[in-house]
Amino acid sequence: MNAKGKLIIIGGAEDKEGKCEILKKVVKMSGGRDSKIVLMTTATEHPKEVGDLYIKIFNKLGVNQIDTVNINSRHDASDSHYVQLIDNSTCIFFTGGDQLRITSLLGGTSAYYALHKAYSNGALLVGTSAGASAMSSNMIVTGTDDDAPKYCTLKMAPGLGIIGEVVIDQHFAQRGRIGRLLVAVAENPHMLGIGIDEDTAIVVSENIFNVIGSQSVTVVDGMPISHTNVSELGHKEPIALTDIKLHILPKGYGFDLRSRTPILADGDKTNEEDR
Amino acid sequence: MNAKGKLIIIGGAEDKEGKCEILKKVVKMSGGRDSKIVLMTTATEHPKEVGDLYIKIFNKLGVNQIDTVNINSRHDASDSHYVQLIDNSTCIFFTGGDQLRITSLLGGTSAYYALHKAYSNGALLVGTSAGASAMSSNMIVTGTDDDAPKYCTLKMAPGLGIIGEVVIDQHFAQRGRIGRLLVAVAENPHMLGIGIDEDTAIVVSENIFNVIGSQSVTVVDGMPISHTNVSELGHKEPIALTDIKLHILPKGYGFDLRSRTPILADGDKTNEEDR
Repeated sequence: MNAKGKLIIIGGAEDKEGKCEILKKVVKMSGGRDSKIVLMTTATEHPKEVGDLYIKIFNKLGVNQIDTVNINSRHDASDSHYVQLIDNSTCIFFTGGDQLRITSLLGGTSAYYALHKAYSNGALLVGTSAGASAMSSNMIVTGTDDDAPKYCTLKMAPGLGIIGEVVIDQHFAQRGRIGRLLVAVAENPHMLGIGIDEDTAIVVSENIFNVIGSQSVTVVDGMPISHTNVSELGHKEPIALTDIKLHILPKGYGFDLRSRTPILADGDKTNEEDR
Repeated sequence: MNAKGKLIIIGGAEDKEGKCEILKKVVKMSGGRDSKIVLMTTATEHPKEVGDLYIKIFNKLGVNQIDTVNINSRHDASDSHYVQLIDNSTCIFFTGGDQLRITSLLGGTSAYYALHKAYSNGALLVGTSAGASAMSSNMIVTGTDDDAPKYCTLKMAPGLGIIGEVVIDQHFAQRGRIGRLLVAVAENPHMLGIGIDEDTAIVVSENIFNVIGSQSVTVVDGMPISHTNVSELGHKEPIALTDIKLHILPKGYGFDLRSRTPILADGDKTNEEDR
């Protein structure tokens, strides 16, 4: 775990027309009217449309200083103007698209180090959809939706490394992704699986996350797994797993990432000993 | 639990053209070439097509005595000819369709008591898809696919009561149904949730089930749930649940329904104490 800064990870399709609960939280944690938001549109192949959409919404939510940083090549990622915008921002917001574009174009560049530095110095980092996946050290690239967990059906890659020891998945219930998250957790149960629904987000700070938004967060804890055959299978064979622990956490609930303990809506942690 | 007879519950879409693993098992447990299979097509609105399809397959698998019992009204369900066919069968096979047709047309009729009697006397009972759902005492009628578990989104009804203390769901991974099964389990964690994938079945005998077929069975054990807010919510609000236990069991694995313990492919039970 190295989630020491401020981080909001959104499961995609956050409300942009109604109460905008999640985006309002982004603004609040970025400094309200004084926010300096940098929109990272690298993931999408429609950076202009996506950038303009978020500019319009953040304007409506009271923020005036918003810059789109459309890094479209590794060359762009060393552009000192972009690096300066990141350095001076209070919030770096990764849009949706393809998470592999984020990591393959930014990885190891000046922009990459700038965003890590900004995060360490207190800037809020935000990712939605592909931007959400990219936040973890081990990132899901693709997998099969609405399917049983199966051997070799998950493509992973090194993510931005903003938060370690977890695997993030997005559009979670809406695309039937528990199977693919179970594959990731089965492959190394040390990694906590975090499945974030659409219009739902986790706000991470000091190794605690809190859930906001209209749907739920599914936590897949593989630590208690007592049996698995994941290393013994052929291609696409279904995986056996016993004694997985699952938590379903809607708005108001939280989770302690170090102790792997849910935090109830009234602030109490569940206590295994007391049950 | 009252699964004292022989029972095969199929998650729908069982292979009918390739190796026919599941349907071969049906034939084997019905008495092989001496099987007397009664096809219960009540669930479907296309009884002729569905009946003929299964007759063709079971013929191919070596069975000659197959009768379609198309009970299409409560009046039909008292027909003594149908009752006699059920009485004399070695296998009663419920096809897919709408599970509410099965229970609303058969419930409390002569055919209903005949099939319970046949099951008690050793006939194999089989249900696929809607026929699978109907087997439990508490039956899922409809719910939302690919969704977070939410209050009041599940319609349940009394099932045929062949197997108690469980809730069966079908087309499980393929339709993203963990959310709706979690609702059922949350509402009464005494009930064990059993989600059966397509082309996958559980063979139940003496309160043990074994998995056959190409995909997986998901067991949702709500007994360890330490917190839930399911009784405190408004319509369609997402449900909080902590410490659910999950098992993913492909072919070769089994489960002891009384002790709620997975049985590994080599026959060993996992032992919580030994972990």
